[in-house]
Amino acid sequence: MIKGSKIENAAPIIRLGMVGGGPGAFIGAVHMTAARLDNRYQLVAGSFSSDPEKTREIAPSYNIEKERAYSSYQEMAEKESQREDGIEAVTVVTPNNLHYPICKTFLEAGIDVILDKPLTTNLKDALDLVGIVKKTGRIFGLTHEYTGFSAVRQAREMIAKGVLGEVRIIQLEYPQEWLSTKIEDDGLKQAVWRTDPAKSGPAAALADIGTHAVHTARYITGLEVTEVNADLTSFVNGRSLEDNAHVLLRYNNGARGMLWASQCAPGTENDFRIRIFGEKGSIDWQLRWPNEMRYSMLGGNHHLFSRGGSAMEPLSAFANKLPGGHAEGLHDAFGIIYRDIADAILEKRYGIIANPLSTTYPKVEEGAKMIKFIDACLESNRTGNWVSAELGL
Amino acid sequence: MIKGSKIENAAPIIRLGMVGGGPGAFIGAVHMTAARLDNRYQLVAGSFSSDPEKTREIAPSYNIEKERAYSSYQEMAEKESQREDGIEAVTVVTPNNLHYPICKTFLEAGIDVILDKPLTTNLKDALDLVGIVKKTGRIFGLTHEYTGFSAVRQAREMIAKGVLGEVRIIQLEYPQEWLSTKIEDDGLKQAVWRTDPAKSGPAAALADIGTHAVHTARYITGLEVTEVNADLTSFVNGRSLEDNAHVLLRYNNGARGMLWASQCAPGTENDFRIRIFGEKGSIDWQLRWPNEMRYSMLGGNHHLFSRGGSAMEPLSAFANKLPGGHAEGLHDAFGIIYRDIADAILEKRYGIIANPLSTTYPKVEEGAKMIKFIDACLESNRTGNWVSAELGL
Amino acid sequence: MIKGSKIENAAPIIRLGMVGGGPGAFIGAVHMTAARLDNRYQLVAGSFSSDPEKTREIAPSYNIEKERAYSSYQEMAEKESQREDGIEAVTVVTPNNLHYPICKTFLEAGIDVILDKPLTTNLKDALDLVGIVKKTGRIFGLTHEYTGFSAVRQAREMIAKGVLGEVRIIQLEYPQEWLSTKIEDDGLKQAVWRTDPAKSGPAAALADIGTHAVHTARYITGLEVTEVNADLTSFVNGRSLEDNAHVLLRYNNGARGMLWASQCAPGTENDFRIRIFGEKGSIDWQLRWPNEMRYSMLGGNHHLFSRGGSAMEPLSAFANKLPGGHAEGLHDAFGIIYRDIADAILEKRYGIIANPLSTTYPKVEEGAKMIKFIDACLESNRTGNWVSAELGL
Amino acid sequence: MIKGSKIENAAPIIRLGMVGGGPGAFIGAVHMTAARLDNRYQLVAGSFSSDPEKTREIAPSYNIEKERAYSSYQEMAEKESQREDGIEAVTVVTPNNLHYPICKTFLEAGIDVILDKPLTTNLKDALDLVGIVKKTGRIFGLTHEYTGFSAVRQAREMIAKGVLGEVRIIQLEYPQEWLSTKIEDDGLKQAVWRTDPAKSGPAAALADIGTHAVHTARYITGLEVTEVNADLTSFVNGRSLEDNAHVLLRYNNGARGMLWASQCAPGTENDFRIRIFGEKGSIDWQLRWPNEMRYSMLGGNHHLFSRGGSAMEPLSAFANKLPGGHAEGLHDAFGIIYRDIADAILEKRYGIIANPLSTTYPKVEEGAKMIKFIDACLESNRTGNWVSAELGL
Repeated sequence: MIKGSKIENAAPIIRLGMVGGGPGAFIGAVHMTAARLDNRYQLVAGSFSSDPEKTREIAPSYNIEKERAYSSYQEMAEKESQREDGIEAVTVVTPNNLHYPICKTFLEAGIDVILDKPLTTNLKDALDLVGIVKKTGRIFGLTHEYTGFSAVRQAREMIAKGVLGEVRIIQLEYPQEWLSTKIEDDGLKQAVWRTDPAKSGPAAALADIGTHAVHTARYITGLEVTEVNADLTSFVNGRSLEDNAHVLLRYNNGARGMLWASQCAPGTENDFRIRIFGEKGSIDWQLRWPNEMRYSMLGGNHHLFSRGGSAMEPLSAFANKLPGGHAEGLHDAFGIIYRDIADAILEKRYGIIANPLSTTYPKVEEGAKMIKFIDACLESNRTGNWVSAELGL
Repeated sequence: MIKGSKIENAAPIIRLGMVGGGPGAFIGAVHMTAARLDNRYQLVAGSFSSDPEKTREIAPSYNIEKERAYSSYQEMAEKESQREDGIEAVTVVTPNNLHYPICKTFLEAGIDVILDKPLTTNLKDALDLVGIVKKTGRIFGLTHEYTGFSAVRQAREMIAKGVLGEVRIIQLEYPQEWLSTKIEDDGLKQAVWRTDPAKSGPAAALADIGTHAVHTARYITGLEVTEVNADLTSFVNGRSLEDNAHVLLRYNNGARGMLWASQCAPGTENDFRIRIFGEKGSIDWQLRWPNEMRYSMLGGNHHLFSRGGSAMEPLSAFANKLPGGHAEGLHDAFGIIYRDIADAILEKRYGIIANPLSTTYPKVEEGAKMIKFIDACLESNRTGNWVSAELGL
Repeated sequence: MIKGSKIENAAPIIRLGMVGGGPGAFIGAVHMTAARLDNRYQLVAGSFSSDPEKTREIAPSYNIEKERAYSSYQEMAEKESQREDGIEAVTVVTPNNLHYPICKTFLEAGIDVILDKPLTTNLKDALDLVGIVKKTGRIFGLTHEYTGFSAVRQAREMIAKGVLGEVRIIQLEYPQEWLSTKIEDDGLKQAVWRTDPAKSGPAAALADIGTHAVHTARYITGLEVTEVNADLTSFVNGRSLEDNAHVLLRYNNGARGMLWASQCAPGTENDFRIRIFGEKGSIDWQLRWPNEMRYSMLGGNHHLFSRGGSAMEPLSAFANKLPGGHAEGLHDAFGIIYRDIADAILEKRYGIIANPLSTTYPKVEEGAKMIKFIDACLESNRTGNWVSAELGL
Repeated sequence: MIKGSKIENAAPIIRLGMVGGGPGAFIGAVHMTAARLDNRYQLVAGSFSSDPEKTREIAPSYNIEKERAYSSYQEMAEKESQREDGIEAVTVVTPNNLHYPICKTFLEAGIDVILDKPLTTNLKDALDLVGIVKKTGRIFGLTHEYTGFSAVRQAREMIAKGVLGEVRIIQLEYPQEWLSTKIEDDGLKQAVWRTDPAKSGPAAALADIGTHAVHTARYITGLEVTEVNADLTSFVNGRSLEDNAHVLLRYNNGARGMLWASQCAPGTENDFRIRIFGEKGSIDWQLRWPNEMRYSMLGGNHHLFSRGGSAMEPLSAFANKLPGGHAEGLHDAFGIIYRDIADAILEKRYGIIANPLSTTYPKVEEGAKMIKFIDACLESNRTGNWVSAELGL
């Protein structure tokens, strides 16, 4: 049964702020579209740029009141936390190096946080944030948005039910093409900070897209990476961070895997794919056609899961809005993550009991595990050896 | 260049009402998601059901004020047109038989109309609406939403530039599976009215999906159907309207074509596909993977247009929001149609000059041509002969 | 289980002749490759061209003795039928207009016939050949080779078992691109005769490829076309025969269908596809990826049959030689038809009991039904009406 | 232009023997089909099994004379080399451990060799064979058959022309599913010897399929693997050889890559895929649909090479027999390798000048490089370090 309009907005609309999303940004608009999609948030405040002038300039396009366009995130946290109608949650979409101080500030001001991955630029900050979330008791959602796709959730449910048997092999790949040439020299904002260690941290492709792949596999299988062996490369001359990562993976149940994350793979656009092989069958999902998932049993017995059909498990159906054949896309999946986080916020703040299916959104602990994974890859690349990636949380 | 958040909402947010979309409806939620997507509309009034009780019940979920949940569309048109903050536009998502009186009422009350296809249930009403729109000067948008896909617009631009040469063959197919059994007997609301001539009009599959296919081909090629030869079938026992339509098409430039529209084709889900062949090449677009379009030149020279890449024509780029590889879906395409109509409304009401690329949304004349097409198919099916489908407007 | 080498050639190798296949021909080489594939035939005689000089010239490349390269098919039939080691079967790969006299000659000389479709250029000759085959008792195989694909045979078996329930809709398409321009003016041999009514008969696209589609559907479903409504077009200026055919189909069980056969559809190469929809499910097979067949049950329950897997029905497995994932192609399918016919010949001539699975190859009656189908389409195109295509045999 | 029948067999037919291919074998039949395909070889002698009884039993099915079914390969080499009409070439399709002695015996008996890969079970034997081939001057072809596909050859030619710019990334995967369970315990002949170190050598998946992938990449790019870092696993309990191999690759031009070769990946059937990324574009070829190759240029500019079209480079066209859209499969590709080797044999033995395009078949040196590659992977797996895979030949 298709989710009808009936269940929307019986609850209050959450007052939302945003840090980042200034002129030339891309992901801010995606976050705001996702927030609007189910009508559970309204953007009412923002500090869109480190340059106050730019924040003032762009504020009208976000349709917020002039006085709530702040010169700095610190000012925003302070003033909003004092208003009776102040923001209840904040979306953080800045370069990676600012994630830690901004999240800390808002959490400590009593404001829930929705953060674009990766969590931080180093493990110390990551573990510190884990502690702050625990201490403040605030809601913290990390937008590994691919876990919002109905087919990804179907994979999780099917594997949990044992359809594949014990998982043996995990093949992860996330190639992009946009950094195949040195476009950071042309000033494209998103390329400039992502290739700058001061803003992006010590990893580029691994942090930006590799963590999506590893996290999504963890979401689907529940397995943890225990050891890595990585070969990181900067193919484009004059680039200091890796634009290509090849990593061998070992998992806590004995499964083996591979990760390929690249930002200089012409022709791939943004071609995230995840394949999981168990004793009895396999699952294959590709972002390019996100409404489908192929699963196969031993012996040439292939099936195609198609979002919207009758085979959807409850968790998958809960992330489905349209009949089969009508494509859902990134905005829809991103919106599901926002909806899940809204449910958590509404439960926390208003005591509205959330649907038990809305609790699987990525949290701060998952963010910290990904930072540990990056650390391990960097060390393995330096030494040529296998390195532990375990982080017990 | 990706459309950033910058251009959103420098303009007023349009006050919107809705007729239809009550409990159990599906398309109402899609319309409202589309309306919210670009933050250009806010729903403030509604008459969601012919049963006032149901309207009152569902109103909170639409987040509108109690007093603006109306018992009838007539009351809504009357009261809203008298309020200073009354609705500027109305979305109409009722069964087909109500399209004509509702649209007439709102147009004559000075309110712009966004209507879910088909326009009416007969040609007389359709032509009457054409006249009313002309007389009142109001904005009228018909949601043939597939023309909001970036790839569909790319096809239009490429053909206009002559990439295919003269068009010779148009192959249209829109199979669905949901009416393969007599589910209207189980009370599924959407099936009940669509298979009931009193509510749906004299055609079912043709009106519901056939018109999408024929309209989209017209949007892409600019060609008009001049003659049809139709074989209509009701495969499911006890169903009075056709659930399968096979139609031979002749176009005004001498091109030939075929339409297959079916609602009892198991395994197809909702598999709209359009292929256009010219002297030199061809174009192939399929709703299932809407971000891609294959085009091929004579001699095994195949290309794949992928939304988000550098090859997008301006009209196509204007309908694109995400980088390549990140899927856009039905909500996004539907949102583009809503955005286009918003631009027309804002120009009309506020004198804000619309982007010239936002004027291709389907209008009342296109709706009337589709009603003529249905009429011609019905007659051809009765007589076994070719019948003219021309309607000069 | 993969068919091993074990079962090859316990039997005699059939002595084969060929009429046609001269310089510039294409299909002759395909027939000979197919004949060699399973080592059941050896080419020993031929009349490769109507020009004796060309026959002499090309004979060495076919590796036959000089004296058995004949100036005319009549001479070949006469002399070979008198030799003790004369040919037992003949492959006929000439333009259509010669099919009738050649087949008649060899059949009456006691030689089995393997003929490239279509059977004849008119119904009278077709029915006459049916009689001659019956009278002479000779083996007659028509190379509608697509019925040799393992996946096509799987479809037949699954439908026979009732997987789809009653068949309702049959969608046939066979577009090609090679005649999109007037290449017959450049002298390409295969284009010249196919567009010349004196050699091809009164139909071009319908005879050359349309019959493949209609026959294959008949092979799979067992249903007969009872009525047609056709729109035939010659898109290329100065061409007298149709290069595009659009046909509405009605079947003897009430099923409806469509056939699109075109030779001027740029970008399609040779894109034969057949889809069959029943009450409960559907089947979709496409020549481009012939080792796969998609079948779907109502409710988004999709399966992929993959040749070589464990799901093969006996008739399908009998046409399979390689493990799954290793592609089989046209030569393999064509070879299966040749192997089936070889089994029939060996049973007839040597009393070697053939495998019961080798009896489904296309025979003279099927050829005659296709000629009737063409006749009906031509008449319907002239009159604009539905025309009967029934031929009881 | 389609290759017509004209160019076949102006030359003598090569007398061929076979070692291996006994009851229950699979690859022997494939080799013989390939040999027959172009009518350049005739099988006249064989030693099909190490059990003389089985050889005698199966000999009639190969259609050879009784006296030329030999009890041992040694006897065959000796007697055939003394006959005036003795075999000119031998096909060797035994378990790996016998490759070395058999090849050595026939080469030294003056008989050309066609060997199924891998070359040997250790590097010493491999290098020894390289020397014997050089010393005897005999023709030696190794059937890495995937290099016979037209699309693979197209990739080679396009990269040589610089279409991709400098190659940066090579992604190789060859998953199979047939050894996902311990079927060797059921006695399936092909599984038994492949999982037995005494017959297969020290590697299983790497030798059987990994070498195909690495060789094909080398054929396409001309690049050499210089270092490897491997993680080898035996997933199935009680299996001593690896059934899964994950390998990081470094190439002599600085390119990086990955190889995944697995025989326990359910649902993959036999899914060899090779992707090559350069500075400007990429190439993607997959065995499952071997007639196509996708190539893409930076910026969302995708193309599809389709075998049979006008874009074929000469080397690719030389491996093409059918018009586009008519699939070619494994037998066709295998046949191209056999045809290439036939051309070399005919030049050597009869002075018939071979087409310059027929010289790219895999030779003994390529075989030795693959054995070095296996050695390096085994050592890396033991030590956890990067290991050199260079072999200058």
